[in-house]
Amino acid sequence: MSVDARLARLGLRIPAPPPAAGNYRSAVLANDLLFVSGQMPLLDGELRYCGRVGAELSESEAGEAARLAALNVLAQIKAALAGFDRLESLVRLEGHVSSVPGWTGQPRVLDYASNLFMAALGDRGAHTRTAFAPVQLPLNASIELVVTALVAKHPISCGDVIHR
Amino acid sequence: MSVDARLARLGLRIPAPPPAAGNYRSAVLANDLLFVSGQMPLLDGELRYCGRVGAELSESEAGEAARLAALNVLAQIKAALAGFDRLESLVRLEGHVSSVPGWTGQPRVLDYASNLFMAALGDRGAHTRTAFAPVQLPLNASIELVVTALVAKHPISCGDVIHR
Amino acid sequence: MSVDARLARLGLRIPAPPPAAGNYRSAVLANDLLFVSGQMPLLDGELRYCGRVGAELSESEAGEAARLAALNVLAQIKAALAGFDRLESLVRLEGHVSSVPGWTGQPRVLDYASNLFMAALGDRGAHTRTAFAPVQLPLNASIELVVTALVAKHPISCGDVIHR
Repeated sequence: MSVDARLARLGLRIPAPPPAAGNYRSAVLANDLLFVSGQMPLLDGELRYCGRVGAELSESEAGEAARLAALNVLAQIKAALAGFDRLESLVRLEGHVSSVPGWTGQPRVLDYASNLFMAALGDRGAHTRTAFAPVQLPLNASIELVVTALVAKHPISCGDVIHR
Repeated sequence: MSVDARLARLGLRIPAPPPAAGNYRSAVLANDLLFVSGQMPLLDGELRYCGRVGAELSESEAGEAARLAALNVLAQIKAALAGFDRLESLVRLEGHVSSVPGWTGQPRVLDYASNLFMAALGDRGAHTRTAFAPVQLPLNASIELVVTALVAKHPISCGDVIHR
Repeated sequence: MSVDARLARLGLRIPAPPPAAGNYRSAVLANDLLFVSGQMPLLDGELRYCGRVGAELSESEAGEAARLAALNVLAQIKAALAGFDRLESLVRLEGHVSSVPGWTGQPRVLDYASNLFMAALGDRGAHTRTAFAPVQLPLNASIELVVTALVAKHPISCGDVIHR
Protein backbone atom coordinates (compact mmCIF):
# COMPACT_ATOMS: atom_id res chain seq x y z
CA MET A 1 0.00 0.00 0.00
CA SER A 2 1.32 3.45 -0.86
CA VAL A 3 2.22 6.01 1.75
CA ASP A 4 -0.63 8.22 0.59
CA ALA A 5 -3.08 5.32 0.87
CA ARG A 6 -1.85 4.45 4.35
CA LEU A 7 -2.32 8.06 5.42
CA ALA A 8 -5.77 8.27 3.81
CA ARG A 9 -6.80 5.29 5.92
CA LEU A 10 -5.91 7.43 8.94
CA GLY A 11 -7.87 10.37 7.55
CA LEU A 12 -4.64 12.23 6.82
CA ARG A 13 -3.06 13.66 3.71
CA ILE A 14 0.37 15.05 2.99
CA PRO A 15 0.20 18.84 2.66
CA ALA A 16 2.20 21.04 0.31
CA PRO A 17 5.72 21.37 1.76
CA PRO A 18 6.05 24.61 3.73
CA PRO A 19 8.59 27.08 2.30
CA ALA A 20 11.81 27.77 4.20
CA ALA A 21 11.68 30.62 6.73
CA GLY A 22 14.96 32.16 5.57
CA ASN A 23 17.93 31.78 3.25
CA TYR A 24 18.17 28.01 3.37
CA ARG A 25 16.73 24.92 1.74
CA SER A 26 14.01 22.70 3.13
CA ALA A 27 15.95 19.56 2.24
CA VAL A 28 19.41 18.66 0.98
CA LEU A 29 20.39 15.24 -0.34
CA ALA A 30 23.98 14.31 0.55
CA ASN A 31 24.67 11.07 -1.30
CA ASP A 32 22.66 8.51 0.68
CA LEU A 33 21.36 10.79 3.43
CA LEU A 34 18.52 13.26 3.12
CA PHE A 35 18.66 16.10 5.61
CA VAL A 36 15.38 17.92 6.29
CA SER A 37 15.17 21.36 7.90
CA GLY A 38 13.29 21.60 11.18
CA GLN A 39 9.55 21.32 10.60
CA MET A 40 6.86 23.00 12.66
CA PRO A 41 3.07 22.57 12.99
CA LEU A 42 2.28 24.69 9.93
CA LEU A 43 -1.03 24.23 8.12
CA ASP A 44 -1.91 26.20 5.00
CA GLY A 45 0.90 28.61 5.74
CA GLU A 46 -0.18 29.29 9.30
CA LEU A 47 1.58 28.18 12.46
CA ARG A 48 -0.90 26.28 14.63
CA TYR A 49 -0.89 25.23 18.29
CA CYS A 50 1.50 27.96 19.41
CA GLY A 51 2.88 28.09 22.91
CA ARG A 52 4.05 25.67 25.58
CA VAL A 53 2.72 22.42 26.96
CA GLY A 54 1.58 23.06 30.48
CA ALA A 55 0.48 26.63 29.79
CA GLU A 56 -1.08 27.46 26.40
CA LEU A 57 -1.34 23.80 25.29
CA SER A 58 -2.46 20.50 26.76
CA GLU A 59 -0.50 17.31 26.18
CA SER A 60 -2.98 16.05 23.57
CA GLU A 61 -2.96 19.40 21.73
CA ALA A 62 0.83 19.21 21.64
CA GLY A 63 0.43 15.68 20.26
CA GLU A 64 -1.75 17.03 17.43
CA ALA A 65 0.91 19.67 16.80
CA ALA A 66 3.51 16.92 16.60
CA ARG A 67 1.39 15.10 14.00
CA LEU A 68 1.09 18.26 11.91
CA ALA A 69 4.85 18.77 12.04
CA ALA A 70 5.35 15.11 11.11
CA LEU A 71 3.11 15.52 8.06
CA ASN A 72 5.29 18.44 7.01
CA VAL A 73 8.37 16.24 7.37
CA LEU A 74 6.72 13.72 5.03
CA ALA A 75 5.83 16.58 2.66
CA GLN A 76 9.48 17.66 2.49
CA ILE A 77 10.72 14.11 1.91
CA LYS A 78 8.12 13.53 -0.81
CA ALA A 79 9.07 16.78 -2.54
CA ALA A 80 12.83 16.17 -2.25
CA LEU A 81 12.70 12.59 -3.54
CA ALA A 82 9.72 12.99 -5.92
CA GLY A 83 7.77 10.44 -3.90
CA PHE A 84 8.68 7.77 -1.40
CA ASP A 85 10.04 5.05 -3.69
CA ARG A 86 13.66 5.87 -2.91
CA LEU A 87 13.14 6.37 0.83
CA GLU A 88 14.88 3.49 2.52
CA SER A 89 14.26 4.52 6.12
CA LEU A 90 13.88 7.40 8.46
CA VAL A 91 17.00 7.36 10.58
CA ARG A 92 17.01 10.14 13.12
CA LEU A 93 14.34 12.29 14.70
CA GLU A 94 15.07 15.12 17.10
CA GLY A 95 11.87 16.26 18.77
CA HIS A 96 11.71 19.60 20.52
CA VAL A 97 8.61 20.19 22.64
CA SER A 98 8.14 23.69 24.03
CA SER A 99 7.30 23.15 27.70
CA VAL A 100 6.79 25.06 30.91
CA PRO A 101 9.46 24.39 33.54
CA GLY A 102 8.64 21.20 35.42
CA TRP A 103 6.64 19.52 32.64
CA THR A 104 8.59 16.42 31.65
CA GLY A 105 6.28 14.26 29.47
CA GLN A 106 7.90 15.12 26.14
CA PRO A 107 8.35 11.46 25.06
CA ARG A 108 4.57 10.95 25.17
CA VAL A 109 4.03 13.98 22.91
CA LEU A 110 6.66 12.78 20.46
CA ASP A 111 5.05 9.35 20.20
CA TYR A 112 2.26 11.07 18.25
CA ALA A 113 4.85 11.86 15.59
CA SER A 114 6.65 8.51 15.83
CA ASN A 115 3.35 6.62 15.59
CA LEU A 116 2.39 8.62 12.50
CA PHE A 117 5.73 7.83 10.84
CA MET A 118 5.33 4.11 11.57
CA ALA A 119 1.71 4.10 10.35
CA ALA A 120 2.58 5.96 7.14
CA LEU A 121 5.87 4.27 6.29
CA GLY A 122 5.74 0.87 7.96
CA ASP A 123 9.18 -0.53 8.69
CA ARG A 124 10.69 2.34 6.74
CA GLY A 125 9.41 4.69 9.44
CA ALA A 126 11.75 3.28 12.09
CA HIS A 127 14.04 5.90 13.59
CA THR A 128 16.25 6.82 16.49
CA ARG A 129 14.87 9.65 18.57
CA THR A 130 15.98 12.26 21.04
CA ALA A 131 13.52 14.38 23.01
CA PHE A 132 14.12 17.93 24.20
CA ALA A 133 12.15 20.17 26.54
CA PRO A 134 13.00 23.78 25.64
CA VAL A 135 11.05 26.53 27.37
CA GLN A 136 10.55 28.22 24.00
CA LEU A 137 11.02 27.68 20.28
CA PRO A 138 11.42 30.14 17.40
CA LEU A 139 8.19 31.84 16.28
CA ASN A 140 6.58 30.62 19.53
CA ALA A 141 6.09 27.19 17.92
CA SER A 142 5.17 24.33 20.23
CA ILE A 143 6.96 21.61 18.26
CA GLU A 144 10.00 21.34 16.04
CA LEU A 145 10.96 18.05 14.39
CA VAL A 146 14.31 17.48 12.69
CA VAL A 147 14.59 14.38 10.54
CA THR A 148 17.42 12.68 8.70
CA ALA A 149 16.55 9.84 6.29
CA LEU A 150 18.38 7.15 4.37
CA VAL A 151 17.89 7.14 0.61
CA ALA A 152 18.42 4.27 -1.79
CA LYS A 153 20.13 4.77 -5.15
CA HIS A 154 17.27 3.05 -6.91
CA PRO A 155 13.57 2.78 -6.11
CA ILE A 156 12.75 0.09 -3.58
CA SER A 157 10.22 -2.43 -4.87
CA CYS A 158 7.72 -4.32 -2.84
CA GLY A 159 9.33 -7.58 -1.80
CA ASP A 160 12.90 -6.28 -1.85
CA VAL A 161 14.94 -7.45 1.07
CA ILE A 162 16.54 -4.45 2.67
CA HIS A 163 19.81 -5.09 4.46
CA ARG A 164 20.71 -2.58 7.09
CA MET B 1 43.20 -4.37 24.63
CA SER B 2 39.45 -4.81 24.28
CA VAL B 3 36.98 -2.08 25.11
CA ASP B 4 35.65 -4.15 28.00
CA ALA B 5 39.17 -4.64 29.36
CA ARG B 6 39.92 -0.95 29.09
CA LEU B 7 36.75 -0.15 31.00
CA ALA B 8 37.45 -2.79 33.63
CA ARG B 9 40.79 -1.08 34.27
CA LEU B 10 38.76 2.02 35.12
CA GLY B 11 36.44 0.02 37.35
CA LEU B 12 33.61 0.36 34.82
CA ARG B 13 31.50 -2.07 32.88
CA ILE B 14 29.07 -1.64 30.03
CA PRO B 15 25.49 -2.08 31.26
CA ALA B 16 22.59 -3.67 29.42
CA PRO B 17 21.35 -1.16 26.83
CA PRO B 18 18.34 0.77 28.17
CA PRO B 19 15.11 0.23 26.21
CA ALA B 20 13.66 3.08 24.16
CA ALA B 21 11.23 5.39 25.98
CA GLY B 22 8.67 5.34 23.16
CA ASN B 23 7.92 4.13 19.65
CA TYR B 24 11.44 4.38 18.28
CA ARG B 25 14.68 2.40 18.10
CA SER B 26 17.71 2.85 20.27
CA ALA B 27 20.02 2.71 17.26
CA VAL B 28 19.72 2.67 13.48
CA LEU B 29 22.54 1.79 11.10
CA ALA B 30 22.42 3.83 7.91
CA ASN B 31 25.12 2.35 5.67
CA ASP B 32 28.35 3.61 7.27
CA LEU B 33 26.82 5.73 10.03
CA LEU B 34 25.31 4.47 13.25
CA PHE B 35 22.78 6.82 14.81
CA VAL B 36 22.11 6.36 18.52
CA SER B 37 19.07 7.77 20.32
CA GLY B 38 19.71 10.24 23.10
CA GLN B 39 21.05 8.47 26.18
CA MET B 40 20.44 9.51 29.77
CA PRO B 41 22.02 8.57 33.14
CA LEU B 42 19.98 5.40 33.54
CA LEU B 43 21.25 2.60 35.78
CA ASP B 44 19.36 -0.67 36.21
CA GLY B 45 16.28 0.92 34.69
CA GLU B 46 16.29 3.92 37.00
CA LEU B 47 17.09 7.48 36.06
CA ARG B 48 19.86 8.73 38.36
CA TYR B 49 21.18 12.21 39.20
CA CYS B 50 17.97 14.02 38.25
CA GLY B 51 17.76 17.79 38.16
CA ARG B 52 19.93 20.74 37.20
CA VAL B 53 23.54 21.64 37.82
CA GLY B 54 23.61 24.58 40.17
CA ALA B 55 20.48 23.50 42.03
CA GLU B 56 19.87 19.79 42.63
CA LEU B 57 23.32 18.71 41.36
CA SER B 58 26.91 19.78 41.79
CA GLU B 59 29.29 19.92 38.84
CA SER B 60 30.99 16.67 39.84
CA GLU B 61 27.65 14.87 40.30
CA ALA B 62 26.69 16.03 36.80
CA GLY B 63 30.01 14.64 35.62
CA GLU B 64 29.14 11.24 37.11
CA ALA B 65 25.77 11.49 35.35
CA ALA B 66 27.57 12.20 32.08
CA ARG B 67 29.71 9.07 32.60
CA LEU B 68 26.61 6.95 33.20
CA ALA B 69 25.01 8.30 30.04
CA ALA B 70 28.26 7.64 28.15
CA LEU B 71 28.26 4.02 29.32
CA ASN B 72 24.73 3.70 27.96
CA VAL B 73 25.93 5.09 24.61
CA LEU B 74 28.61 2.37 24.56
CA ALA B 75 25.95 -0.20 25.49
CA GLN B 76 23.80 0.82 22.53
CA ILE B 77 26.74 0.74 20.12
CA LYS B 78 27.83 -2.67 21.40
CA ALA B 79 24.30 -4.04 21.01
CA ALA B 80 23.76 -2.53 17.56
CA LEU B 81 27.10 -3.73 16.14
CA ALA B 82 27.39 -6.96 18.16
CA GLY B 83 30.57 -5.67 19.74
CA PHE B 84 33.06 -2.96 18.90
CA ASP B 85 35.04 -4.62 16.11
CA ARG B 86 33.24 -2.73 13.38
CA LEU B 87 33.25 0.62 15.17
CA GLU B 88 35.61 2.84 13.23
CA SER B 89 35.15 6.01 15.25
CA LEU B 90 32.75 8.05 17.24
CA VAL B 91 32.03 11.08 15.11
CA ARG B 92 29.62 13.46 16.77
CA LEU B 93 28.54 14.05 20.35
CA GLU B 94 25.87 16.51 21.35
CA GLY B 95 25.90 17.02 25.09
CA HIS B 96 22.93 18.56 26.85
CA VAL B 97 23.50 19.53 30.48
CA SER B 98 20.44 20.65 32.44
CA SER B 99 21.53 23.83 34.19
CA VAL B 100 20.17 26.67 36.26
CA PRO B 101 20.26 30.03 34.49
CA GLY B 102 23.68 31.57 34.81
CA TRP B 103 25.63 28.33 35.19
CA THR B 104 27.90 28.08 32.16
CA GLY B 105 30.45 25.31 32.86
CA GLN B 106 28.84 22.67 30.63
CA PRO B 107 32.06 21.85 28.72
CA ARG B 108 33.70 20.73 31.97
CA VAL B 109 30.79 18.37 32.70
CA LEU B 110 30.92 16.94 29.19
CA ASP B 111 34.63 16.21 29.48
CA TYR B 112 33.66 13.44 31.90
CA ALA B 113 31.90 11.76 28.98
CA SER B 114 34.55 12.62 26.40
CA ASN B 115 37.31 11.34 28.68
CA LEU B 116 35.43 8.08 29.18
CA PHE B 117 35.02 7.61 25.43
CA MET B 118 38.72 8.22 24.85
CA ALA B 119 39.70 5.88 27.70
CA ALA B 120 37.39 3.11 26.48
CA LEU B 121 37.93 3.42 22.75
CA GLY B 122 41.36 5.02 22.34
CA ASP B 123 41.72 6.85 19.03
CA ARG B 124 38.36 5.47 17.96
CA GLY B 125 36.77 7.56 20.70
CA ALA B 126 37.64 10.85 19.01
CA HIS B 127 34.59 12.99 18.25
CA THR B 128 33.32 16.43 17.50
CA ARG B 129 31.25 17.91 20.28
CA THR B 130 28.66 20.57 20.88
CA ALA B 131 27.57 21.59 24.38
CA PHE B 132 24.13 22.85 25.32
CA ALA B 133 22.79 24.37 28.54
CA PRO B 134 19.03 23.77 28.63
CA VAL B 135 17.17 24.72 31.79
CA GLN B 136 15.41 21.35 31.70
CA LEU B 137 15.43 17.99 29.92
CA PRO B 138 12.71 15.37 29.44
CA LEU B 139 11.98 13.22 32.51
CA ASN B 140 13.92 15.77 34.58
CA ALA B 141 17.17 14.16 33.42
CA SER B 142 20.38 16.06 34.09
CA ILE B 143 22.24 14.83 31.02
CA GLU B 144 21.38 13.74 27.51
CA LEU B 145 24.07 12.55 25.10
CA VAL B 146 23.44 12.08 21.38
CA VAL B 147 26.11 10.17 19.48
CA THR B 148 26.70 9.38 15.82
CA ALA B 149 29.43 6.87 14.94
CA LEU B 150 31.26 5.68 11.84
CA VAL B 151 31.07 1.98 11.08
CA ALA B 152 33.42 -0.08 8.96
CA LYS B 153 32.13 -2.71 6.51
CA HIS B 154 34.47 -5.28 7.99
CA PRO B 155 35.93 -5.71 11.46
CA ILE B 156 38.95 -3.56 12.14
CA SER B 157 41.99 -5.55 13.22
CA CYS B 158 44.68 -4.45 15.54
CA GLY B 159 47.38 -2.85 13.45
CA ASP B 160 45.10 -1.80 10.61
CA VAL B 161 45.87 1.65 9.33
CA ILE B 162 42.68 3.67 9.34
CA HIS B 163 42.46 6.42 6.77
CA ARG B 164 40.06 9.20 7.58
CA MET C 1 36.54 33.16 -7.59
CA SER C 2 38.04 31.61 -4.47
CA VAL C 3 36.29 31.53 -1.14
CA ASP C 4 38.91 33.84 0.31
CA ALA C 5 38.44 36.30 -2.57
CA ARG C 6 34.68 36.25 -2.16
CA LEU C 7 35.05 36.97 1.54
CA ALA C 8 37.60 39.74 0.91
CA ARG C 9 35.05 41.43 -1.33
CA LEU C 10 32.77 41.51 1.71
CA GLY C 11 35.56 42.89 3.89
CA LEU C 12 35.86 39.55 5.71
CA ARG C 13 38.62 37.06 6.22
CA ILE C 14 38.71 33.56 7.62
CA PRO C 15 40.31 33.55 11.07
CA ALA C 16 42.53 30.90 12.59
CA PRO C 17 40.29 28.00 13.67
CA PRO C 18 39.49 28.24 17.40
CA PRO C 19 40.80 25.35 19.50
CA ALA C 20 38.36 22.88 21.05
CA ALA C 21 37.06 23.76 24.52
CA GLY C 22 37.62 20.26 25.90
CA ASN C 23 38.68 16.72 25.09
CA TYR C 24 37.25 16.58 21.57
CA ARG C 25 38.13 17.48 18.01
CA SER C 26 36.99 20.54 16.12
CA ALA C 27 36.16 18.46 13.04
CA VAL C 28 35.93 14.80 12.10
CA LEU C 29 35.71 13.49 8.55
CA ALA C 30 33.50 10.39 8.29
CA ASN C 31 33.90 9.19 4.70
CA ASP C 32 31.88 11.76 2.71
CA LEU C 33 30.58 13.83 5.62
CA LEU C 34 32.52 16.40 7.60
CA PHE C 35 31.19 17.00 11.09
CA VAL C 36 32.18 20.29 12.73
CA SER C 37 31.92 20.96 16.46
CA GLY C 38 29.63 23.77 17.54
CA GLN C 39 31.19 27.15 16.77
CA MET C 40 30.71 30.32 18.79
CA PRO C 41 31.42 34.01 18.13
CA LEU C 42 35.08 33.78 19.09
CA LEU C 43 37.54 36.36 17.77
CA ASP C 44 41.25 36.19 18.58
CA GLY C 45 40.55 33.72 21.35
CA GLU C 46 37.92 35.87 23.00
CA LEU C 47 34.20 35.19 23.11
CA ARG C 48 32.36 38.26 21.78
CA TYR C 49 28.75 39.43 21.96
CA CYS C 50 27.92 37.46 25.10
CA GLY C 51 24.41 37.23 26.45
CA ARG C 52 20.87 37.00 25.11
CA VAL C 53 18.98 38.76 22.36
CA GLY C 54 16.38 40.95 23.97
CA ALA C 55 18.51 41.69 27.03
CA GLU C 56 22.27 42.13 26.60
CA LEU C 57 22.15 42.07 22.77
CA SER C 58 20.08 43.63 20.03
CA GLU C 59 18.97 41.62 17.01
CA SER C 60 21.63 43.18 14.78
CA GLU C 61 24.37 42.54 17.34
CA ALA C 62 23.26 38.90 17.47
CA GLY C 63 23.46 38.91 13.67
CA GLU C 64 27.08 40.08 13.85
CA ALA C 65 27.71 37.31 16.39
CA ALA C 66 26.20 34.80 13.96
CA ARG C 67 28.56 36.04 11.23
CA LEU C 68 31.57 35.63 13.54
CA ALA C 69 30.50 32.09 14.39
CA ALA C 70 29.96 31.37 10.68
CA LEU C 71 33.50 32.54 9.90
CA ASN C 72 34.76 30.10 12.53
CA VAL C 73 32.77 27.32 10.84
CA LEU C 74 34.54 28.18 7.57
CA ALA C 75 37.85 28.23 9.44
CA GLN C 76 37.27 24.71 10.75
CA ILE C 77 36.25 23.40 7.32
CA LYS C 78 39.28 25.02 5.68
CA ALA C 79 41.59 23.52 8.28
CA ALA C 80 40.02 20.07 8.14
CA LEU C 81 40.04 19.83 4.34
CA ALA C 82 43.20 21.90 3.70
CA GLY C 83 41.14 24.41 1.75
CA PHE C 84 37.73 24.38 0.10
CA ASP C 85 38.47 22.41 -3.08
CA ARG C 86 36.96 19.20 -1.73
CA LEU C 87 33.94 20.88 -0.12
CA GLU C 88 30.95 19.79 -2.15
CA SER C 89 28.26 21.49 -0.10
CA LEU C 90 27.23 22.55 3.33
CA VAL C 91 24.38 20.25 4.24
CA ARG C 92 23.00 21.01 7.67
CA LEU C 93 23.10 24.02 9.97
CA GLU C 94 21.67 24.05 13.47
CA GLY C 95 21.51 27.59 14.77
CA HIS C 96 21.09 28.24 18.47
CA VAL C 97 20.32 31.85 19.43
CA SER C 98 20.37 32.68 23.14
CA SER C 99 17.17 34.64 23.70
CA VAL C 100 15.07 36.11 26.47
CA PRO C 101 11.71 34.41 26.89
CA GLY C 102 9.24 35.83 24.41
CA TRP C 103 11.76 36.87 21.77
CA THR C 104 11.05 34.75 18.71
CA GLY C 105 12.97 36.29 15.78
CA GLN C 106 15.75 33.68 15.68
CA PRO C 107 15.39 32.97 11.92
CA ARG C 108 16.26 36.60 11.13
CA VAL C 109 19.43 36.36 13.22
CA LEU C 110 20.44 33.09 11.56
CA ASP C 111 20.03 34.60 8.10
CA TYR C 112 23.17 36.62 8.86
CA ALA C 113 25.04 33.30 8.98
CA SER C 114 23.17 31.71 6.07
CA ASN C 115 23.77 34.81 3.91
CA LEU C 116 27.47 34.72 4.73
CA PHE C 117 27.70 31.04 3.76
CA MET C 118 25.96 31.70 0.45
CA ALA C 119 28.13 34.75 -0.26
CA ALA C 120 31.34 32.89 0.56
CA LEU C 121 30.56 29.53 -1.02
CA GLY C 122 27.97 30.23 -3.72
CA ASP C 123 25.83 27.21 -4.51
CA ARG C 124 28.07 25.11 -2.27
CA GLY C 125 26.81 27.16 0.68
CA ALA C 126 23.26 25.79 0.40
CA HIS C 127 22.10 24.05 3.55
CA THR C 128 19.14 22.85 5.56
CA ARG C 129 18.61 24.79 8.75
CA THR C 130 16.92 24.45 12.10
CA ALA C 131 16.61 27.38 14.50
CA PHE C 132 16.53 27.13 18.27
CA ALA C 133 15.79 29.70 20.96
CA PRO C 134 17.49 28.57 24.18
CA VAL C 135 17.45 30.93 27.14
CA GLN C 136 21.16 30.30 27.62
CA LEU C 137 24.18 28.69 25.98
CA PRO C 138 27.44 27.38 27.45
CA LEU C 139 29.98 30.06 28.39
CA ASN C 140 27.16 32.62 28.11
CA ALA C 141 27.61 32.64 24.33
CA SER C 142 24.89 34.29 22.26
CA ILE C 143 25.22 32.01 19.24
CA GLU C 144 26.20 28.43 18.55
CA LEU C 145 26.30 27.04 15.01
CA VAL C 146 26.62 23.33 14.24
CA VAL C 147 27.45 22.44 10.65
CA THR C 148 27.68 19.19 8.72
CA ALA C 149 29.15 19.30 5.21
CA LEU C 150 29.44 16.99 2.21
CA VAL C 151 32.96 16.27 0.98
CA ALA C 152 34.02 15.07 -2.45
CA LYS C 153 36.67 12.37 -2.88
CA HIS C 154 38.56 14.56 -5.34
CA PRO C 155 38.85 18.32 -5.66
CA ILE C 156 35.94 19.93 -7.49
CA SER C 157 37.02 21.95 -10.51
CA CYS C 158 35.31 24.99 -11.87
CA GLY C 159 32.83 23.85 -14.47
CA ASP C 160 32.26 20.42 -12.94
CA VAL C 161 28.64 19.43 -12.92
CA ILE C 162 27.70 18.39 -9.43
CA HIS C 163 24.91 15.86 -9.16
CA ARG C 164 23.11 15.83 -5.86
